[in-house]
Amino acid sequence: MRSKPPAVLVLVFDVFGTVVDWRGSLVREGRKLGRAKGLKVDWEAFADAWRAGYRPAMARVRSGELPWRTIDALHRMILDELLKQFGIEGLGEEEVQQLNRAWHRLRPWPDARAGLSRLKRDHVIATLSNGNVALLTALSKFGALPWDCILSAELFRHYKPDAQVYLGAAALLDVPPRRLMMVAAHKDDLHAAKACGLRTAFVRRPLEFGRRARPDLKDEPAFDVNADDFLDLARKLARGR
Amino acid sequence: MRSKPPAVLVLVFDVFGTVVDWRGSLVREGRKLGRAKGLKVDWEAFADAWRAGYRPAMARVRSGELPWRTIDALHRMILDELLKQFGIEGLGEEEVQQLNRAWHRLRPWPDARAGLSRLKRDHVIATLSNGNVALLTALSKFGALPWDCILSAELFRHYKPDAQVYLGAAALLDVPPRRLMMVAAHKDDLHAAKACGLRTAFVRRPLEFGRRARPDLKDEPAFDVNADDFLDLARKLARGR
Repeated sequence: MRSKPPAVLVLVFDVFGTVVDWRGSLVREGRKLGRAKGLKVDWEAFADAWRAGYRPAMARVRSGELPWRTIDALHRMILDELLKQFGIEGLGEEEVQQLNRAWHRLRPWPDARAGLSRLKRDHVIATLSNGNVALLTALSKFGALPWDCILSAELFRHYKPDAQVYLGAAALLDVPPRRLMMVAAHKDDLHAAKACGLRTAFVRRPLEFGRRARPDLKDEPAFDVNADDFLDLARKLARGR
Repeated sequence: MRSKPPAVLVLVFDVFGTVVDWRGSLVREGRKLGRAKGLKVDWEAFADAWRAGYRPAMARVRSGELPWRTIDALHRMILDELLKQFGIEGLGEEEVQQLNRAWHRLRPWPDARAGLSRLKRDHVIATLSNGNVALLTALSKFGALPWDCILSAELFRHYKPDAQVYLGAAALLDVPPRRLMMVAAHKDDLHAAKACGLRTAFVRRPLEFGRRARPDLKDEPAFDVNADDFLDLARKLARGR
């Protein structure tokens, strides 16, 4: 008889794209700023370029080329380039800071708050994001997300998918990796978590990159759960108990 | 004209004694265990001895005599001694672990949940305790405490009153120390926070050490606020806005 896998105790969540709609939120903030300042900018392209700068910037930290810095600082570094590239002029330092903090005001996906509240009944739920602690705290307060705990790559001074992040979360929450489940809309995050012995849940977010994008949304048997949203994840975890 | 002090943005809370009634909770758990196992123990003396072992144990970590270990581990080290001292026999390893985790099930003071919910409306609220992350997370879930963020001495590998803890919290929450207020029932914690530039709120907890204790509950002008409980703190902070 095959032994049943251990019950999941703790769920840790990727945040950008998995819990919150970064693209729609940035576009909304950009358009608002554009109207206020009379800017003609393609804010969808701007949002995509901002996000596209994120991995290369993190890679420079992960490789040791740049010393540790937070996502807030990396976002600002990318933003300063984009302002030039998109010909955005006339913003004061306070306005640029305010724009950079758009990442603190990302809206949750429609199912996120209700789904997390449901999952919180039977599990400890925590963030496990590359976003820094201050960003995740502000974002969660903005979106009224009911986390039990905020965990961030910043606490380990390593960015996902470095193993230190997944194993560090297990250590701080004092559970063996097999009792910890990584929840993400990104398969690379889940594969890295799985390689550390964590359990994995893939949640489809078809609109993360906009209506025209065609992200990989296929079920993957390697993951413990494949779900359509957090409510579906809650149903599937409850069934497995 | 004296300039008004900056508005507080973020409140960080001592937990044991300030938010939760460790003594009453431990005594309750001890008595329950005593009935179940037929033990004759003075559980008030037991709880006091457990707590009394905490400072010397942390001092051994702070001095470098012991390598870093969590409060869960220090509690267990003290507990193993107390079981001998109080002549408690016949507990299996699982039962001793369960008793050690009594610190994960401490009840909030009667005003704590409502007071924190009120304070959360206008401020970021976070723990800043010597308890480890897993302990604080479990405790907060047990007591339904609505933190925005769980911060612990464990994240800095320094115990309060080391400056690294207070300044580390300001760094992680990305606020200058003067925008951060330490809330505690213990004056030494507040004096150490103040020395790091934090603002301070003293909250009286007359029953922390039981009905017969006579703790120092006097207002102290050196602190920004002296309050009777969290609801009183909320009123006083709202008035200062």
